[in-house]
Amino acid sequence: MDFYPVAIEKLIEEFAKLPGIGRKTAQRLALFVLNLPKEEVEEFAGALVKARGTLKFCCICGCFTDTDPCAICSNPNRDKSMICVVENPKDIITMERVREFNGVYHVLHGTISPMSGRGPEDIKLRELIRRINGEVHEVIVATNPNIEGEATAMYISKILKPLGTKVTRIAHGIPVGGDLEYTDEVTLSKAMEGRKEI
Amino acid sequence: MDFYPVAIEKLIEEFAKLPGIGRKTAQRLALFVLNLPKEEVEEFAGALVKARGTLKFCCICGCFTDTDPCAICSNPNRDKSMICVVENPKDIITMERVREFNGVYHVLHGTISPMSGRGPEDIKLRELIRRINGEVHEVIVATNPNIEGEATAMYISKILKPLGTKVTRIAHGIPVGGDLEYTDEVTLSKAMEGRKEI
Repeated sequence: MDFYPVAIEKLIEEFAKLPGIGRKTAQRLALFVLNLPKEEVEEFAGALVKARGTLKFCCICGCFTDTDPCAICSNPNRDKSMICVVENPKDIITMERVREFNGVYHVLHGTISPMSGRGPEDIKLRELIRRINGEVHEVIVATNPNIEGEATAMYISKILKPLGTKVTRIAHGIPVGGDLEYTDEVTLSKAMEGRKEI
Repeated sequence: MDFYPVAIEKLIEEFAKLPGIGRKTAQRLALFVLNLPKEEVEEFAGALVKARGTLKFCCICGCFTDTDPCAICSNPNRDKSMICVVENPKDIITMERVREFNGVYHVLHGTISPMSGRGPEDIKLRELIRRINGEVHEVIVATNPNIEGEATAMYISKILKPLGTKVTRIAHGIPVGGDLEYTDEVTLSKAMEGRKEI
């Protein structure tokens, strides 16, 4: 054990709780912070408390926002007939970066995972169903391409199809710039399955 | 530019100021923090402010401490006749981890670097000279083995030798577990120079 003063040790431990930050990096960060002017450290601390304190989720899509409804849901230029369903708010950020999708979003805040005991009622599925009306033409399920994500997509499709909504799933395939040699069999098989005439 | 709410964007920017944390990691850390319980975020913020706020430096060696003089300087079992000179407080932590040195320390809080306009008066050199008395038999200079560290070591040696103090420098050589093949020429030449009979 190192002989850091208590307050510094505590700060190191706090940094070490962050994902991907080990003890060594936490030490480096803590010592860096100690060399900053007092005001800057207070600004950092303030930003932490404020971001967490003012955190709100959009009453429509469930994304984090500072206005309610969020900027996307309240934008009249966005196509309300297409809802893209994602697992987490940060997935919206990723989608928005592509600048291609002009519909609206719905955040599930998780996935169905029987293995971890998370059922349909543990995610924002009821909220999604409530949004489905005659105006909504397509629900694009963009959950992650893993077991939970696929299971969730299947479940959503099963629930929404009887309501007369078109449910689609984002395509699987080889990433652009990827290499056939390093592509796993499942992805390759999905890529073959999803082939298109050129 | 991503469409994060202002408070979250601010938090991301604060994280991105930390060393080795890019925009992408900062986003991940900020979103992780937002998912923590409010109390934990406040604890983190509190740890930041407290560590920086209570930060004190030992009046003798200049290491950060919560008692003054620090635990090492006030320990009667430490050999006050040997002073190990280091650049930064964290170097003391590293030295202490070795559990071999039983003397005391002196933190310079920097190095002499004419290139960056840092002279002898910009580091805690005067404080070191003031500590030299008949009781001190050896000053071990453990600044980093780079240009600034070497220059600083040379300068300290020049200043302290006339005072009748033995000044030594930590050895250069090939790291234990290292490989000759991957050792640079300067290190190898230093390793040859410092060879010992076995």
